[in-house]
Amino acid sequence: MSFINPDEDKLQEECGVFGILGHPDAAAFTALGLHALQHRGQEASGIVSYDGKRFHSERHFGLVGDHFTDAATIERLPGNGALGHTLYSTSGETVLRNVQPLFAELGTGGIAICHNGNFTNARTLRNRIIASGAICQSTSDTEVVLHLIARSKEHNSGNRFTDAIKQMEGAFALVAMTTTKLIGARDRLGIRPLVLGDLDGAPIFASETCALDIIGAKFVRDVKNGEVIIFEQEMDGSISQKSIMPFEPANERLCVFEYVYFARPDSIVSGRSVYDVRKRMGSVLSDESHVDADVIVPVPDSGVPAAIGYAHQSGVPFELGIIRNHYVGRTFIEPTQSIRALGVKLKLSANRGQIEGKRVILIDDSIVRGTTSTKIVQMIREAGASEVHMRIASPPIIAPDYYGIDTPHSDQLLANRVADVAEMCEFIGADSLSFLSINGLYNAIDGEDRNDAAPQFTDHYFTKDYPTRLTDLEGNFALGQASLLKEAG
Amino acid sequence: MSFINPDEDKLQEECGVFGILGHPDAAAFTALGLHALQHRGQEASGIVSYDGKRFHSERHFGLVGDHFTDAATIERLPGNGALGHTLYSTSGETVLRNVQPLFAELGTGGIAICHNGNFTNARTLRNRIIASGAICQSTSDTEVVLHLIARSKEHNSGNRFTDAIKQMEGAFALVAMTTTKLIGARDRLGIRPLVLGDLDGAPIFASETCALDIIGAKFVRDVKNGEVIIFEQEMDGSISQKSIMPFEPANERLCVFEYVYFARPDSIVSGRSVYDVRKRMGSVLSDESHVDADVIVPVPDSGVPAAIGYAHQSGVPFELGIIRNHYVGRTFIEPTQSIRALGVKLKLSANRGQIEGKRVILIDDSIVRGTTSTKIVQMIREAGASEVHMRIASPPIIAPDYYGIDTPHSDQLLANRVADVAEMCEFIGADSLSFLSINGLYNAIDGEDRNDAAPQFTDHYFTKDYPTRLTDLEGNFALGQASLLKEAG
Amino acid sequence: MSFINPDEDKLQEECGVFGILGHPDAAAFTALGLHALQHRGQEASGIVSYDGKRFHSERHFGLVGDHFTDAATIERLPGNGALGHTLYSTSGETVLRNVQPLFAELGTGGIAICHNGNFTNARTLRNRIIASGAICQSTSDTEVVLHLIARSKEHNSGNRFTDAIKQMEGAFALVAMTTTKLIGARDRLGIRPLVLGDLDGAPIFASETCALDIIGAKFVRDVKNGEVIIFEQEMDGSISQKSIMPFEPANERLCVFEYVYFARPDSIVSGRSVYDVRKRMGSVLSDESHVDADVIVPVPDSGVPAAIGYAHQSGVPFELGIIRNHYVGRTFIEPTQSIRALGVKLKLSANRGQIEGKRVILIDDSIVRGTTSTKIVQMIREAGASEVHMRIASPPIIAPDYYGIDTPHSDQLLANRVADVAEMCEFIGADSLSFLSINGLYNAIDGEDRNDAAPQFTDHYFTKDYPTRLTDLEGNFALGQASLLKEAG
Amino acid sequence: MSFINPDEDKLQEECGVFGILGHPDAAAFTALGLHALQHRGQEASGIVSYDGKRFHSERHFGLVGDHFTDAATIERLPGNGALGHTLYSTSGETVLRNVQPLFAELGTGGIAICHNGNFTNARTLRNRIIASGAICQSTSDTEVVLHLIARSKEHNSGNRFTDAIKQMEGAFALVAMTTTKLIGARDRLGIRPLVLGDLDGAPIFASETCALDIIGAKFVRDVKNGEVIIFEQEMDGSISQKSIMPFEPANERLCVFEYVYFARPDSIVSGRSVYDVRKRMGSVLSDESHVDADVIVPVPDSGVPAAIGYAHQSGVPFELGIIRNHYVGRTFIEPTQSIRALGVKLKLSANRGQIEGKRVILIDDSIVRGTTSTKIVQMIREAGASEVHMRIASPPIIAPDYYGIDTPHSDQLLANRVADVAEMCEFIGADSLSFLSINGLYNAIDGEDRNDAAPQFTDHYFTKDYPTRLTDLEGNFALGQASLLKEAG
Repeated sequence: MSFINPDEDKLQEECGVFGILGHPDAAAFTALGLHALQHRGQEASGIVSYDGKRFHSERHFGLVGDHFTDAATIERLPGNGALGHTLYSTSGETVLRNVQPLFAELGTGGIAICHNGNFTNARTLRNRIIASGAICQSTSDTEVVLHLIARSKEHNSGNRFTDAIKQMEGAFALVAMTTTKLIGARDRLGIRPLVLGDLDGAPIFASETCALDIIGAKFVRDVKNGEVIIFEQEMDGSISQKSIMPFEPANERLCVFEYVYFARPDSIVSGRSVYDVRKRMGSVLSDESHVDADVIVPVPDSGVPAAIGYAHQSGVPFELGIIRNHYVGRTFIEPTQSIRALGVKLKLSANRGQIEGKRVILIDDSIVRGTTSTKIVQMIREAGASEVHMRIASPPIIAPDYYGIDTPHSDQLLANRVADVAEMCEFIGADSLSFLSINGLYNAIDGEDRNDAAPQFTDHYFTKDYPTRLTDLEGNFALGQASLLKEAG
Repeated sequence: MSFINPDEDKLQEECGVFGILGHPDAAAFTALGLHALQHRGQEASGIVSYDGKRFHSERHFGLVGDHFTDAATIERLPGNGALGHTLYSTSGETVLRNVQPLFAELGTGGIAICHNGNFTNARTLRNRIIASGAICQSTSDTEVVLHLIARSKEHNSGNRFTDAIKQMEGAFALVAMTTTKLIGARDRLGIRPLVLGDLDGAPIFASETCALDIIGAKFVRDVKNGEVIIFEQEMDGSISQKSIMPFEPANERLCVFEYVYFARPDSIVSGRSVYDVRKRMGSVLSDESHVDADVIVPVPDSGVPAAIGYAHQSGVPFELGIIRNHYVGRTFIEPTQSIRALGVKLKLSANRGQIEGKRVILIDDSIVRGTTSTKIVQMIREAGASEVHMRIASPPIIAPDYYGIDTPHSDQLLANRVADVAEMCEFIGADSLSFLSINGLYNAIDGEDRNDAAPQFTDHYFTKDYPTRLTDLEGNFALGQASLLKEAG
Repeated sequence: MSFINPDEDKLQEECGVFGILGHPDAAAFTALGLHALQHRGQEASGIVSYDGKRFHSERHFGLVGDHFTDAATIERLPGNGALGHTLYSTSGETVLRNVQPLFAELGTGGIAICHNGNFTNARTLRNRIIASGAICQSTSDTEVVLHLIARSKEHNSGNRFTDAIKQMEGAFALVAMTTTKLIGARDRLGIRPLVLGDLDGAPIFASETCALDIIGAKFVRDVKNGEVIIFEQEMDGSISQKSIMPFEPANERLCVFEYVYFARPDSIVSGRSVYDVRKRMGSVLSDESHVDADVIVPVPDSGVPAAIGYAHQSGVPFELGIIRNHYVGRTFIEPTQSIRALGVKLKLSANRGQIEGKRVILIDDSIVRGTTSTKIVQMIREAGASEVHMRIASPPIIAPDYYGIDTPHSDQLLANRVADVAEMCEFIGADSLSFLSINGLYNAIDGEDRNDAAPQFTDHYFTKDYPTRLTDLEGNFALGQASLLKEAG
Repeated sequence: MSFINPDEDKLQEECGVFGILGHPDAAAFTALGLHALQHRGQEASGIVSYDGKRFHSERHFGLVGDHFTDAATIERLPGNGALGHTLYSTSGETVLRNVQPLFAELGTGGIAICHNGNFTNARTLRNRIIASGAICQSTSDTEVVLHLIARSKEHNSGNRFTDAIKQMEGAFALVAMTTTKLIGARDRLGIRPLVLGDLDGAPIFASETCALDIIGAKFVRDVKNGEVIIFEQEMDGSISQKSIMPFEPANERLCVFEYVYFARPDSIVSGRSVYDVRKRMGSVLSDESHVDADVIVPVPDSGVPAAIGYAHQSGVPFELGIIRNHYVGRTFIEPTQSIRALGVKLKLSANRGQIEGKRVILIDDSIVRGTTSTKIVQMIREAGASEVHMRIASPPIIAPDYYGIDTPHSDQLLANRVADVAEMCEFIGADSLSFLSINGLYNAIDGEDRNDAAPQFTDHYFTKDYPTRLTDLEGNFALGQASLLKEAG
């Protein structure tokens, strides 16, 4: 048993995006917005600003708080428009060249763009573009959008942008900035979230409302699924707004995992408090699978809201039976072999006083490979629990994602590796194990069962029901990859 | 209003100490132990090991997890004995020279030493030592102990150590290592904690039990107040143990703030679960000062256990109404002026769904200057709370510490700046404010009122009742400081 | 008077290039070759390797010796083909994105390219390419070549390369690597040097022979002006060679400044030892302008060979009357104002024993702005020289370069700021000043006068006679620059 | 054959020292002085300043130019007195704790001290001091001086200093600073150099005159052998000077290797220009051992002045037949094995045009192990020399140093490993090899033969004639070392 890192066996969101137009502190606010979105990507971050004459860019590996907090950096990003991005990185290797925002010089002036999500036809388009004589310098799928914009026959940059994204399949929340415009767009189904905010008249796009809260900006509304919103700054400084719906109409199908794990608990996603939804997941989970116990213990931090809801519903006391050490956030650990064998706990430790001699219900948000769950159950047993019951506030994960979430190969998912929940329980070593049902999940969010004919959410993780075509997966794009450049940094 | 850092207006513990003898992974375990004690000092850390021939040392500014996690560093610290220290630094400027463990070459061989606490006669002794022809190279008070050991007429290193500490007043948990011995000692009143553990026969000293838990070591017992425990490794590798009580007998008077704030909630201090004590503080606080409310909201992370206890006792639901962003742990922030004025929230954000339109009881562990409380109350009001009641799980702080805790000047303490609790309430902008009474505090810990004739704990923060002489404070040691060396790095 | 940096008032060569195919240590040898070419660019360096499947890249700001000397870095660059570049940077701002080799994914596979020189029609072509829907991500002119290669209708990568460079005007020594080929090319006039070497059958291209010497490679021949040499590795590992002359025939017109200052003294450029040429410059200079003196003192290091030649010819002893401190090579110095005023000498100091009371002839290779010369003359006077005569081993510089050399604006050149050599002499404060004549320069190189009808060398610095069209300069490409991205790093 | 580093097979000077009193730019000038003394120690450097109230210190590993060149660092060193040191480090492991200036708090106020040289009785004294109850925290011998000062019964800090150094044997140039005084001292024989300078009334001590030249300070005189000079700043800012001769009178016996290699060529040491002395060494060397040849080639940089003298005397032309690449100054190189075998030349390269087909006389200043000489001879042969004659401008080195110079073990010295000069010649692979005779050396310096009864210089390297007792060497101080602390950083 190696170190317990409660985050390493989670699905990882790829990115957070932020853009603002018409505020003298544009870059500073973007840095703060990205800091609030840090949970959506910790590998790298970048900001591009435009000062009326030139674009300026700073891109760095590491946390926003490590690189964008001093006045000198912010001063290198002048202008009243700015765009920012935090990166986790799945498609495209992690090289500084791939760190967003990406930038291109077009005939109509420069454009910077950043992207949360994943295109399911990017490689197919990329091969086509290269074949026609273009050059690709990054391995980022987002570069494809830039090429499509560059090749559009439209004259107006807003129209060129719309022209380009109409060719894209998959999931995307895009924010772009030109010399006069700030553009936000969400894919046809609204798989990835994007909200519109306002700070003293300056429009803002952000992945989540928590990025508005940190700077005191007002939440205006969600960008709609399939909507392109274009803000344009006129000569006199005034800002006009335009909304376009370039796609065929469709109902929203937001990614359900935003509620399960990705979004911050204090964000409001599609009109729902994430914290409240998670408490209700815990509450429904209690209704579906409660057993007699002495204490409800969350796996921190992601299991806490569901555990509060579960405890409230079941009447069993909620206790911090596991303490999380927040000092290791960003450290690479390379222990000696003898220590690796010991099973030490760098991030989590059992709070023995709440565990010893007790029947414990552990609450976690999800199980991916099951490796961390196994270690946590063992730690709780070693701390003297008489029984350990694991309750998971979402259904078993059985299918990978292709919309910007880092998922392990299908055969690494615990639910696929063993026959049933009973064997999963055996694997993690618990006395019992239950998952929230798919209808339980839908009810916790919306008060209704899943509409199997027209599901309200993107939920392929649990159902294998992918909401879009998977063009690249169907095609053969391996050839184009043969000579991709790998760069260390 | 500048950034809200919930930790910056807390009293800060100075140090954590750890020592182990007779284990081949001594340095690696010491690194892990220090990691678990990181909350007791984040400025610097150091480890000294002894390999039978030589002492080896690594001392670094920054977190344990930044400097002691790779195999190469651990390999530079060979040997089966090791000593480690995390530093916050109050007395003595923070220079690498002052980072512990300190080391000295004595006639009887080398000795390394580390210290949690503060001597109240160190400067007096220091001036005396310098006057007699010794040289002091650090500004650390701990160096004085080394001088006293060096000057002792005793021949045995254990006796020399005991000889030295008998001259020291104040608070100390000391761990020392010589070429054959590991020594742990606690001051006569046991103001600072120190526990004895065991890992497969290898004895361990540590500030708190959480440092034993992380490496799977067994808790043996607390080192007693006024006790010196000496482990000696014989030629055949066996380890003998000896306990000495060199001081005049006294009842233990542990620092009460270990329960209020310093110790980790999963530690057992003097036989009591810190988490349980804090829950009881919340429970008693509820009994003493509850008001009608809709929700109990802790100031994370330190207010959480008391809030759970308070919620349980009052029956009002516990909710994470404030979300803490853990990504900024170690970042220095230098915002632009316009942003500073905005009151942005880098570490804490209101979870609006739990606050809006509600009567909120905020639970925090203590109020020092009151600056952070003011910002938090304002943030909760801006999130739409209809009422904000602040409840503090300890009494008002009215006196500085001289035993190793970083306290502001007496006139910066909010309780000293205004007339009474009503004015404190007005200062922080709450609708009501209550503190746990001193007897409430004692009852939460022990089930008994304070014995004013012979108080069970060190509690001068709340009572001005200092448990020892304050020799340096009485004397005039300003002269000796005139030419102290200030070193930047 | 601020610090004397003898290099800061020199014309600066832009780049050094190196490529090798078919050797298992390709990247390591490229690193060594670049190290030998470090004098051609100290701002950044990059290496791309190809391992039969993938391209690998490492690009860094700073010296080769700072980033490419450890085994780990070299191991990240596997394969038997490699390409490397050192950068000084004139056109295109210095951002990591612009650091070469540049890479592009083409329909026919990847290609990496690096460039020494400057295209005089790059911006014109760039605007045309952008207008047609391509995107440019760097501000480097070299990217234009990649676009032209991508757009070529040819099917073979060698032909596509040739197709592309036929459209380029100006000066270039290009080395490119595809999945099977190593390509070297020199512009029609051979303005920038490029040599062909061989190491155990592995072909090498390098800017100068010193890069062959460092790895023990054999010098084969110069790449001819206007020649493209293509090496192709067959399936069986054998390497074929092909030479193409795609341009209209022309006589070589090598940049004369390679002899004056750029090339390393131990290099053989176009068949001539640079050291020997410089000694002959000193010898002719003595013939043209000798005055009675006691000592010949070079301005180190660039003036040394000419001073040796001058001393030998004149019979006046050569002495190291100025000592160069080599410890400051790469340090940025920001002194306090009061020190700036003092005129301290961080890099050069007078060797008083050789100067005091003596008539000194100072030998330098060139005068650009004259600022450093002024300081050096003053330093020599302060060291007690009775007379100071400055002799320059090249003619006065009167025109800027557009072929990859960083020259100040025309009106900053000392020769343009004052009326004649007498006023230049007054400006630098010497007792007399003489320059080598243009025919003296040609004679020192070749034993013949300049052929004004068909000059043997590129010498516009001294004559304003530019050997190619200056298309960008004639056109208006300012528009395209309006929104160029500026990136700090 | 591995890389040729012409410096790695040299004797290495341990330290440079600098001190100044009474100038507002004290620290900045000290930084510049240390920069000029960088050749005397490149591992670490430190500056201590005193601002009238406090001492301030900055100590760093690395070059002066890397750490002391920005205004911020200099501002952290306020005051009109400053002391600086550059370190090579021989005795005492290289840990930041050992980097000088060392500082101690005494009863009479603080004192900072720095030292060039080595005490031959430091360990003996150290053991005595430790036995009497003092503690030693560094492994630097200089700390012993601090202890002796602290223990002195004198009341005046100047007298205490004198009291202390009277107990020291060996070689030392010491500079110390107290709250009011700047003190310079040289050992009884003046083995290590120390000069006195003046800048606008502010007295300066420095190891060499080049440190005065860089800041435009006036050379006043050498500190005499056995002299202590004490400057004291009065209340009114005026500075008084006192000279004490505390040792038994003796003739100066300066270390002859200062002339051979250590000192910078532009320094004046004991009244002689180092450059001139080295030229005369070359000249006498030519008289003693010239052979017919075509060219005189120095091993750069240390062999250059002697080669100029040799060429002048012999009439054979001086040429830069070896080019030194100055870009690798501070880089650690870890090549792959296959490259190591190649014999590449990172620092030196043959200038083939001056070597090929020629009879070459190589001039170097000394041979220590002979490893570098072997590689250089091979490189010259590979460049096509028809004959290679090595001429060394000093006698064979046969004995180690104990006065602050890093010498290899006696049995590693080439002169001790083989029978005679003929075998040394064979070892390095030259056609002939000759050394300057000991009388030739003395004549080059002073025009007189060595006075064997009372040698004019310290020359044990060549004669085994040590000028002082070697107390530590005679005693047994190994015991005291057993538990010395080894610290990595």
